[in-house]
Amino acid sequence: MNQRTKDHDIQVNLGHRSYPINIQTGVIDRIAEVASEVVSGKHVVVVTDSHVGPIYLQRVVGGFQAIAKRVDHITVDAGEKSKCVSTCDELWQRIDDFNTDRHSVIVALGGGVVGDLAGFIAASYARGLNFLQIPTSLLAQVDSSVGGKVGINLPKSKNMVGAFWQPKQVLIDPSVLNTLDDANYIAGMAEVIKYGLIMDQSLFEFLEANVEAIKSRDLEVLSKIISWCCQCKANVVEEDETESSGRRAILNYGHTYGHAIESVFGYGKYLHGQAISIGMECAARLAKELGMVDQEFCDRQTKLFKAVALPTDCPEEKHDALLAAMMRDKKVVGGVLKFILPTRIGHVELVDSPGADAILRSLQNI
Amino acid sequence: MNQRTKDHDIQVNLGHRSYPINIQTGVIDRIAEVASEVVSGKHVVVVTDSHVGPIYLQRVVGGFQAIAKRVDHITVDAGEKSKCVSTCDELWQRIDDFNTDRHSVIVALGGGVVGDLAGFIAASYARGLNFLQIPTSLLAQVDSSVGGKVGINLPKSKNMVGAFWQPKQVLIDPSVLNTLDDANYIAGMAEVIKYGLIMDQSLFEFLEANVEAIKSRDLEVLSKIISWCCQCKANVVEEDETESSGRRAILNYGHTYGHAIESVFGYGKYLHGQAISIGMECAARLAKELGMVDQEFCDRQTKLFKAVALPTDCPEEKHDALLAAMMRDKKVVGGVLKFILPTRIGHVELVDSPGADAILRSLQNI
Repeated sequence: MNQRTKDHDIQVNLGHRSYPINIQTGVIDRIAEVASEVVSGKHVVVVTDSHVGPIYLQRVVGGFQAIAKRVDHITVDAGEKSKCVSTCDELWQRIDDFNTDRHSVIVALGGGVVGDLAGFIAASYARGLNFLQIPTSLLAQVDSSVGGKVGINLPKSKNMVGAFWQPKQVLIDPSVLNTLDDANYIAGMAEVIKYGLIMDQSLFEFLEANVEAIKSRDLEVLSKIISWCCQCKANVVEEDETESSGRRAILNYGHTYGHAIESVFGYGKYLHGQAISIGMECAARLAKELGMVDQEFCDRQTKLFKAVALPTDCPEEKHDALLAAMMRDKKVVGGVLKFILPTRIGHVELVDSPGADAILRSLQNI
Repeated sequence: MNQRTKDHDIQVNLGHRSYPINIQTGVIDRIAEVASEVVSGKHVVVVTDSHVGPIYLQRVVGGFQAIAKRVDHITVDAGEKSKCVSTCDELWQRIDDFNTDRHSVIVALGGGVVGDLAGFIAASYARGLNFLQIPTSLLAQVDSSVGGKVGINLPKSKNMVGAFWQPKQVLIDPSVLNTLDDANYIAGMAEVIKYGLIMDQSLFEFLEANVEAIKSRDLEVLSKIISWCCQCKANVVEEDETESSGRRAILNYGHTYGHAIESVFGYGKYLHGQAISIGMECAARLAKELGMVDQEFCDRQTKLFKAVALPTDCPEEKHDALLAAMMRDKKVVGGVLKFILPTRIGHVELVDSPGADAILRSLQNI
């Protein structure tokens, strides 16, 4: 039984690409009301996956049917493997068969994989369709559904094909996290804690003080956390929509390591959030070696990760492969690897890589 | 022996996406000098095709090597069939293997197919790379290389996957048209004549007065025509970069029919320019039926097409299939097909479709 908690609506201000994020418990059953401006009278294509579809697709399609001209839907296999060129090809042809036109609206109903994949379809079909996100995982709610990064993986490179394509609206229902499995719920917390570490000490302290409420998925606390994170993300994206000024790069704390871990150990062995919590631990060790933070910072970060059951230990094998994978990261600029490293709780900086030896040492749990 | 004709440099003004079009005979051998600002010190990937590569690739790569950090190149099969998802997939993986990063520059060396394909790769790899066009066909020089429309075909829909992605620079060497086969040269003239018909009566009259020079590929006349067309295109694109105000739609005169002809009769049977010269003839007949132009307009258009050996007769078969294909066109808005139709030499308007019977009649050569 979900009580409706306080609504937290946020605006992402990007000129004519501005959009609202409506964070409301139960919003998934009020789509006709809340998404009316974007969807009324339009042709809608809902993209979901084999995990989320069986639980929410019918309700969501019903909501859209009340206001849309026509509603089609596509279900892809759940999991990172669907974020690939061949699934894209299939989706492009499917929506082509739906007689989709440039006034149609693509809806992503699912976690980060569905959002990234459907978003890239929206960005590229007919040179760009309107796009609406209904993220159903914690990770997607606090991170990937906001900010317009969409894309797919290449066999050797994660997220390497894509676009900056802002949604017209993001509908976030914290109560759908009830149906999220523990591993994905906890993995999402890695991105939540990241916001505290990179830009908001108060958020980090709120998380430290609410570990039990987080673990029990207290809806009031979750709603507050999600909106807090979305506001953090919105602030960064407003400053640097296309990752050109460097500001947006702070969101990549732990991600250079994390992407390498996902790539080397195979997408799927580690959830994204697990890979980046390990990555943030490596990054903190590197920052400590460079004299940017002290041991107390590292301990406090590790303690919160452990409290919510996030992994903190890097695999003890394949360190050379991890280093090589990092050198292929999109954050490599003209051959020079850059790292986002902390200086204190709530602040990170972009620094040049200190060299392979230091990186290899940072992979090792001391 | 190519004498260097007057340089015609044009600027496309699109705020921070502005770029120069350098129309200079022999510019293909002065790349290091003319493209220095975009390319110096960068990693360059030249994409070309199996027709153009053997003639120009070595000279172009040599030019870039003088200023770039590193030059890689890829040759795709010549022809419309390469504008597909599977070639895209291959290119994405190839440039991934080149350790391409977000500061690399993609160069399209070829006609419209290469420009559209390489442009979409540039728009989508690493969420967007700098892009330089060296168009080698008349059609690409006067139309597809300018304005940022890039993309690929789906099995059932031409140009249906793509982006608006402006190049950083366009290098046009009119003297490379020497090596273009007659069919493609003449097909390109369809787009040239189109500019006169849709927006510039003086250009149309200049073409009428210079048919012989056009047929003999006089370099002075060609340079003047190319720059005239690029300026027309730049003016339209500046007013309506993403085809949202309706202004850019004027460029689609003849294209609703033309795309249907290409699609129904198979890409490759008609060159794009041939399909749209037929399309403009159908559109003129439709405009006459609607009382928008008189017979004199139609005759004058037909006469110029025939003078340069462009086809004017629509195939007598598959008219129902053509109609159905038109209904699937991207210009269908909420189910209503729109046409760009002329009112006089130098002016066109966007009008709602008059109904299937009139469209079917317009397909018939009277």
